[in-house]
Amino acid sequence: MPRITAGRREAKRAEIVAAARRCFARDGFHQTSMPDIAAEAGVSAGAPYRYFTSKEEIILAIAGDAFRLIFEPVERLAESADAPSVAELVAAALGTISGETVQDATGREVAVEELLRCVVQTWAEVLRNDEVRGPAAEGFEKVRATIADALRRGRAAGTAPAAIDPDRAARVVMGLLHGFLLQRVAFGLADTAGFADDLHAGLIL
Amino acid sequence: MPRITAGRREAKRAEIVAAARRCFARDGFHQTSMPDIAAEAGVSAGAPYRYFTSKEEIILAIAGDAFRLIFEPVERLAESADAPSVAELVAAALGTISGETVQDATGREVAVEELLRCVVQTWAEVLRNDEVRGPAAEGFEKVRATIADALRRGRAAGTAPAAIDPDRAARVVMGLLHGFLLQRVAFGLADTAGFADDLHAGLIL
Repeated sequence: MPRITAGRREAKRAEIVAAARRCFARDGFHQTSMPDIAAEAGVSAGAPYRYFTSKEEIILAIAGDAFRLIFEPVERLAESADAPSVAELVAAALGTISGETVQDATGREVAVEELLRCVVQTWAEVLRNDEVRGPAAEGFEKVRATIADALRRGRAAGTAPAAIDPDRAARVVMGLLHGFLLQRVAFGLADTAGFADDLHAGLIL
Repeated sequence: MPRITAGRREAKRAEIVAAARRCFARDGFHQTSMPDIAAEAGVSAGAPYRYFTSKEEIILAIAGDAFRLIFEPVERLAESADAPSVAELVAAALGTISGETVQDATGREVAVEELLRCVVQTWAEVLRNDEVRGPAAEGFEKVRATIADALRRGRAAGTAPAAIDPDRAARVVMGLLHGFLLQRVAFGLADTAGFADDLHAGLIL
């Protein structure tokens, strides 16, 4: 068998992840087998195993992509020199969740709806699968802590209410993002732009 | 076979639901079979089928119980003559989500954690299973509309900001409840009582 270049290997891996994403979003994680993923990607049945040892490893890769895409704008704002308010932090993530497509790490267009449907399925896996829970909990805590630090600066600067607990308020931001995400894919949420108006109208400080 | 009374039938059904709840919470919905549920309940392998035609029907029954338990306090407040604020509506549901046990429709004690673990798995089913999506979407919309009506009264009474859209603000309440629920079972949220303090500190109006 001819050796393939690192670039071609990376591209093939991305194709398999994209195929898995379509399968999981359409049929569900548990109704999709590794051969189903291979067939969707148009590769041999054994090919996915050259990149991933299990379906769990693929869903972790997808969840990692989703996590970066959702939380990068929030983290960027939280890490900036500004002292953002809770409302600004929530608004920062609404843009991504509301979009039609985003770019993944390799520059491919990914349908946001497809990605978010995979995220909801990841939550069910987090509950019972240590392999998924570990990285998910670590990612959650990292973003939560970054937001809490930003809110501590915001409290000092007067942009966040002095009486709130920054660590808990960071959980409010995370909770709203998860809640909106769920509503977009499962409970008919279309108007996410409107939420930005509500936030500016002072619903959340 | 002797006929059994309606009361005994009801009790047996509740035992099967309780067994399924333990199985789903511990092993996951897709890793649990109908015979697993029968074994957990200590009944014959065919017994669950006298009450439910499928596993989906059992998870719907569990989701219905959970939905009532989580949203009843919110609905009661929203339907009262008062004009509650967004923060009061969120606080009303935090109590139930934070508790250790609740009573189901038949008066049995149910572990809240177990129930909420089932809810997260229901979300994944909502995405791909019409049988689950229909009732879930209907329940969501009913509570959302009740909250929106309460906020319209609140806006008129000055307890909710005049500039917010009550229909969207109701989605904020639902989103926060879903988000807290997810954090309690998947992302180490222990201090839900603290959130009530933050809400009173004016984080959310």
